[in-house]
Amino acid sequence: MKSKHIIDLEDLTTDELTDIIKLANEIKSNPSDYSDVCRGKILATLFYEPSTRTQMSFKTAMLRLGGSVIGFDNPQNSSVSKGESLKDTITVVGGYTDIIAIRHPSEGTAKAASMYSEAPVINAGDGGHLHPTQTLTDVVTLYNEKGSLGNMTIGLCGDLKNGRTVHSLIKTMSHFKNNKFVLISTPELSVPQYIKDIMNTSDCTYTEVSSLAEAMPILDVLYMTRIQRERFSSEEEYEREKGVFVLDKKKLLYAKRDLKILHPLPRVDEIAEEVDYDSRAKYFVQTVYGMYARMALIKTMLDNFDRNEPVRVFDTHNVKCCNPNCITAREKYLPKIFREVGGDMLICKYCEGRNLI
Amino acid sequence: MKSKHIIDLEDLTTDELTDIIKLANEIKSNPSDYSDVCRGKILATLFYEPSTRTQMSFKTAMLRLGGSVIGFDNPQNSSVSKGESLKDTITVVGGYTDIIAIRHPSEGTAKAASMYSEAPVINAGDGGHLHPTQTLTDVVTLYNEKGSLGNMTIGLCGDLKNGRTVHSLIKTMSHFKNNKFVLISTPELSVPQYIKDIMNTSDCTYTEVSSLAEAMPILDVLYMTRIQRERFSSEEEYEREKGVFVLDKKKLLYAKRDLKILHPLPRVDEIAEEVDYDSRAKYFVQTVYGMYARMALIKTMLDNFDRNEPVRVFDTHNVKCCNPNCITAREKYLPKIFREVGGDMLICKYCEGRNLI
Amino acid sequence: MKSKHIIDLEDLTTDELTDIIKLANEIKSNPSDYSDVCRGKILATLFYEPSTRTQMSFKTAMLRLGGSVIGFDNPQNSSVSKGESLKDTITVVGGYTDIIAIRHPSEGTAKAASMYSEAPVINAGDGGHLHPTQTLTDVVTLYNEKGSLGNMTIGLCGDLKNGRTVHSLIKTMSHFKNNKFVLISTPELSVPQYIKDIMNTSDCTYTEVSSLAEAMPILDVLYMTRIQRERFSSEEEYEREKGVFVLDKKKLLYAKRDLKILHPLPRVDEIAEEVDYDSRAKYFVQTVYGMYARMALIKTMLDNFDRNEPVRVFDTHNVKCCNPNCITAREKYLPKIFREVGGDMLICKYCEGRNLI
Repeated sequence: MKSKHIIDLEDLTTDELTDIIKLANEIKSNPSDYSDVCRGKILATLFYEPSTRTQMSFKTAMLRLGGSVIGFDNPQNSSVSKGESLKDTITVVGGYTDIIAIRHPSEGTAKAASMYSEAPVINAGDGGHLHPTQTLTDVVTLYNEKGSLGNMTIGLCGDLKNGRTVHSLIKTMSHFKNNKFVLISTPELSVPQYIKDIMNTSDCTYTEVSSLAEAMPILDVLYMTRIQRERFSSEEEYEREKGVFVLDKKKLLYAKRDLKILHPLPRVDEIAEEVDYDSRAKYFVQTVYGMYARMALIKTMLDNFDRNEPVRVFDTHNVKCCNPNCITAREKYLPKIFREVGGDMLICKYCEGRNLI
Repeated sequence: MKSKHIIDLEDLTTDELTDIIKLANEIKSNPSDYSDVCRGKILATLFYEPSTRTQMSFKTAMLRLGGSVIGFDNPQNSSVSKGESLKDTITVVGGYTDIIAIRHPSEGTAKAASMYSEAPVINAGDGGHLHPTQTLTDVVTLYNEKGSLGNMTIGLCGDLKNGRTVHSLIKTMSHFKNNKFVLISTPELSVPQYIKDIMNTSDCTYTEVSSLAEAMPILDVLYMTRIQRERFSSEEEYEREKGVFVLDKKKLLYAKRDLKILHPLPRVDEIAEEVDYDSRAKYFVQTVYGMYARMALIKTMLDNFDRNEPVRVFDTHNVKCCNPNCITAREKYLPKIFREVGGDMLICKYCEGRNLI
Repeated sequence: MKSKHIIDLEDLTTDELTDIIKLANEIKSNPSDYSDVCRGKILATLFYEPSTRTQMSFKTAMLRLGGSVIGFDNPQNSSVSKGESLKDTITVVGGYTDIIAIRHPSEGTAKAASMYSEAPVINAGDGGHLHPTQTLTDVVTLYNEKGSLGNMTIGLCGDLKNGRTVHSLIKTMSHFKNNKFVLISTPELSVPQYIKDIMNTSDCTYTEVSSLAEAMPILDVLYMTRIQRERFSSEEEYEREKGVFVLDKKKLLYAKRDLKILHPLPRVDEIAEEVDYDSRAKYFVQTVYGMYARMALIKTMLDNFDRNEPVRVFDTHNVKCCNPNCITAREKYLPKIFREVGGDMLICKYCEGRNLI
């Protein structure tokens, strides 16, 4: 593996990603061959905001590999919230354990944590920024349900502007050949330009449509996400529009017989409960693929990296990141590290926020 | 086993119950023979209300069988409370784990959960309704301490009207031969009619008395429970009456030498601390029997049931259960399922509430 | 071992302490030889106040010995806080598990717990009173980093009046030959007289100084602790004085090349972040030694003690301890036990508070 830590799924080469997907499959087929491969290893799940689902998935994955788990799920009640720096917590926990999964409301936290950890770090969600194991879950599901990762027409429905899982899935699926994306949202909630740029420079194409019904007949995959009420410009617009983006039995009448419906969960009401009984609904089995995906990732990381002392990082620029939700806004000692883009733009290496200079 | 899930202890036949009691004994005698029998299996403890004692008993039981545990104890701080349906949570957790113990403040929750779980479900308490592993604990204790489950005079003291553990113990002990129940409470807090009906149609008899002292000399077993202050009609009545139902050293002077004192714990002040040092006090060792009881139950369920997809359940009637604490009042998608009794009565299959039509 | 429970590090003889330190070293050198020695054993971590760091250290220690862990970290959300006595909780948990680590805000709680536990009890911190596994951590660190436990000049800096870790470290290091203590604090925050008495009657000597810079050149070990803002008589004094007790790179210019810097963590700002990159900073590796120290302690206790029923303890005097933070002020049923000192002084055996009669 080129990277000790998995902050972004892009930290994996396409070959490494493919190997992990195949390993997930192999574990799913022969779980007992893997039930002891992490015996004696400890995973820390450091959840600075609650996410019961994700935490249970990580824990189950480690336990099914024969390892064990420590951590916290609620820093409000823990001494971790009482003034200790992220750096100190990570340094200590990285000394206790063999691998860390961290979730935090601030963008760039997993990157910051990785700079101080002897043990490899997995990003289990950093604010609205990245959530690579969700995307790994999605591609393991697609590979299993479709047999490959190319030549698909993939509908993505809901809040495509703010949905990090959507952005990440598009980025990853763009590495594979000949995928078509159908982007289903209101104009206000369409994908950001930088995601369109990625699709444009890849081997894939995309179209934008404004209703689920319109897209349905051509889809091989439908990736549903939630649209939050607050995203609409008014309550009236929400009431008028929301049905357009809700999946129900009626809309499925026009779908292909081998459509696969995915959802990162939890869902609220964007998929009607009646759809659960349709054999094309794959969003629950998707969580089981997610467990195998995390098993494969944890095993691969533990096999490839020994504990080693982190290398000190220094400021690259004397600039503060302007993103108020960047981890650097909370943890002041963090070195200021940026990537230069063009002449006057700096990209923060934690949160990937753009800073004009 | 006739039932994949244990919602009510009545889900077990008397023979199955006897087998589990005997297995609990066997595990207690030879714990090391069982220390690995659930290696690789995972128990989920889904506690939608805190019950540290019960949760620790389940966890210890699974760990002592060589298995492992995931779960939550405080949904207030977890994403589970943020709008996800019980159905979705159970579907996912049932996919991750091998067996589920669920506790919830609403009546009928364990039944509802079992309808969506691939893994077997154990009811760890659903509101004021049922708590079968407490009753299993009680009968394992009685079998060990008395050598059999029949021919006993069993005093039950405290709030017999509202105490689910009392109702459940009477129901279960009524299946065995020649037990006599002595019901010790105020008239206002005596057992409900349907429990009297059960005793009347069984091989057992009962008497009702209004003080502990009066019953003491004839008892083989004394099952103490708490009377909550709120249950009395006035503060004065509470102060006047409460001593009558408190067990202390003085009242024990008139008890048999081989009396066994049980209590589901936690106790408040209905048993004086001085009684703890009397060799007839069995309420602490009872919790250890509870651990073996849960070990036997978990092992038996895992041995008898493979993971399988739940069968969809449909409405039996177009009626809403009138019990405001029924799980169907919170989770609207649940099918409306009732059992008809007589001409105009429906029993809700979740909470067993009676509905007139 | 002379004592079944470790309430105070003084419960160990110097030989027993030395054996545990050596075992910690041996485990550190050959961890795989110890990865299964507690298979099947269960540690309960009963944390009545949050201390994520300490709890994670105990959990990791038990898991790395092949054992498993149950417990709670937040009694606010648990039924344990709902009126159950410490005695009842400990009696039950001592029946479920093989060893208990307890932390509680009241002084003397671990002692009280040990009186009702079948399983051995480790004090993981009882209010401002004792925290023996922190001191064990400190001495394991010193032994490893220095090669012995005598002949050192040890600086202790910060709030020496209230710091239980400082008092405990001085007490323990006074048992070894020829240590010199340099006490670095404001006059108001200097060590209490009874600690000076201990040093005076030992083989060790001490001096008191009022600035870190002054002491630096002669130190072999520097034990840093936090000074809380509230401890200063005024905000102005705090601002004026605090820098004197902050360790930074500049002050280290005058230190020995083989100085070892320790800190019980968490630190706030009494050690500047820049010091972390100095090879003399040992406060992070100290937490790893702490894990090995707890592994050695747990293994030794489990090897030496079988589960046995606690012996009932009776009042020694008819007196209430006057310390409002003593556990006896919360748990009224606890026997009143005191040690007589001189003619008119009683020392509470729980909190070690002095009571005049």
